[in-house]
Amino acid sequence: MAYGYLGSMKTEPGKRDDVVAILLSGAASLPELGCRSYVVCLAADDPDTIVVTEVWESKEQHDASLRLPEAKEAIAAAMPMLTGEFTSRELIVAGGLGAGG
Amino acid sequence: MAYGYLGSMKTEPGKRDDVVAILLSGAASLPELGCRSYVVCLAADDPDTIVVTEVWESKEQHDASLRLPEAKEAIAAAMPMLTGEFTSRELIVAGGLGAGG
Repeated sequence: MAYGYLGSMKTEPGKRDDVVAILLSGAASLPELGCRSYVVCLAADDPDTIVVTEVWESKEQHDASLRLPEAKEAIAAAMPMLTGEFTSRELIVAGGLGAGG
Repeated sequence: MAYGYLGSMKTEPGKRDDVVAILLSGAASLPELGCRSYVVCLAADDPDTIVVTEVWESKEQHDASLRLPEAKEAIAAAMPMLTGEFTSRELIVAGGLGAGG
């Protein structure tokens, strides 16, 4: 079954939209990397929290995507705007609309 | 911007797959209700937890979908198999692959 990843990050005050723009900047190239879904969201109850939901063909493809130079650059650009408070959860995708495959 | 919803539920031991089947049973009709994405996942770290990530055109359409007879029937069928431990988070969808719109 496909691999899912659910992550959240907290941004420094006023930096949320800048980080969202960085997260969205590489979205066009994701399908060729094995990504089926990569949805960037704002927490409705917190102005400084971003939530990202992801579906990948495999965990290996997800992990490999983070080692690409573009990903490393994006992470380096976003990092100074993040507080360091992250959450993450690994998921096994059972199916549904938008799960692909 | 689109509406996102992130929910988790805990099932009674051995009931996870039955609940997943119920959650997936209505997926085909979701697009006509204003749903862009509805991904049902298993928590990788807990055999009894299901996580659902959803993207809807609007919160109103999400809420209306829960009042349909089919949804009420599905909820009634799943409820006895759930422990009552739920989490939920409302999201504002910023964009990305699979966010639609």
